[in-house]
Amino acid sequence: MTDFMEAALQEARDARRIGEVPIGAVVVHDGQIVGRGHNLREHSQDSTLHAEILAIQEACMTLGSWRLEDCDLYVTLEPCPMCAGAMINSRIRTCYYGAKDPKAGVAGSLGNLLTDTRFNHQVHVVSGVHEAEAAALLQDFFRAIRAQRKAAKKARQAHPES
Amino acid sequence: MTDFMEAALQEARDARRIGEVPIGAVVVHDGQIVGRGHNLREHSQDSTLHAEILAIQEACMTLGSWRLEDCDLYVTLEPCPMCAGAMINSRIRTCYYGAKDPKAGVAGSLGNLLTDTRFNHQVHVVSGVHEAEAAALLQDFFRAIRAQRKAAKKARQAHPES
Repeated sequence: MTDFMEAALQEARDARRIGEVPIGAVVVHDGQIVGRGHNLREHSQDSTLHAEILAIQEACMTLGSWRLEDCDLYVTLEPCPMCAGAMINSRIRTCYYGAKDPKAGVAGSLGNLLTDTRFNHQVHVVSGVHEAEAAALLQDFFRAIRAQRKAAKKARQAHPES
Repeated sequence: MTDFMEAALQEARDARRIGEVPIGAVVVHDGQIVGRGHNLREHSQDSTLHAEILAIQEACMTLGSWRLEDCDLYVTLEPCPMCAGAMINSRIRTCYYGAKDPKAGVAGSLGNLLTDTRFNHQVHVVSGVHEAEAAALLQDFFRAIRAQRKAAKKARQAHPES
């Protein structure tokens, strides 16, 4: 379990390297990674390209089936409604996630879509896997962005005409 | 409004023609269709390729932005959690839909994700647009499938050795 979350964290670091919010995911089948993804929203300018969606799409392609019934998904951040819905639609068995997302997470924070028995499939949820590392990646990323913005504002104030 | 739902219905008919569950969607910006999609789950064997996701992806590409803030989405069936989440993530302004989906719809049937003020964006919802036609497309599709299955079963019973 730890190794697969480490692979998801590596995906998150790949996102950070290109300036994307660092979130990564992998899909695992029979002990093998069959799909990987990291957030590509800014580079693609496509609102649907979250880490989980890309990992699920690659897993469907690898296995040749939209049914990922014996697959588990590891993601560094609690999934949003879109990604939780994609896990239900693809019949993911278990979702392991790292950091909580109090603003948009629907696997514990703002309710739990994944375990809602009104849908035709439920996804087992395990939270807090490598939580500190996943949260630190995000915190460091946003701290750096705030620092850059502050520095840019200071520079504008120092040279208002430039 | 009626014309755009007619375009979504045409997408649904395109899905039916190739044996997919007939669901279609379009995204509209400034009175123009900027994204179209129909369900492609079986052909692609990709669980994420619902009509709305494809229409949103095409709209993002057409407009060169993941923010579809002044866009409306027309879809023949009430959206599932994945597609409702994609609308929230892409800041769709209004979702017009046709038939209700009592099993998986989250724009009125099983709660309403789109208007949930805990998320950072809310999507206005207008339901029941061309509802009868959208529902009939789906009902006819599933009726035909049931009839095919019944006929196949009868044939097997008549010729058990073949």
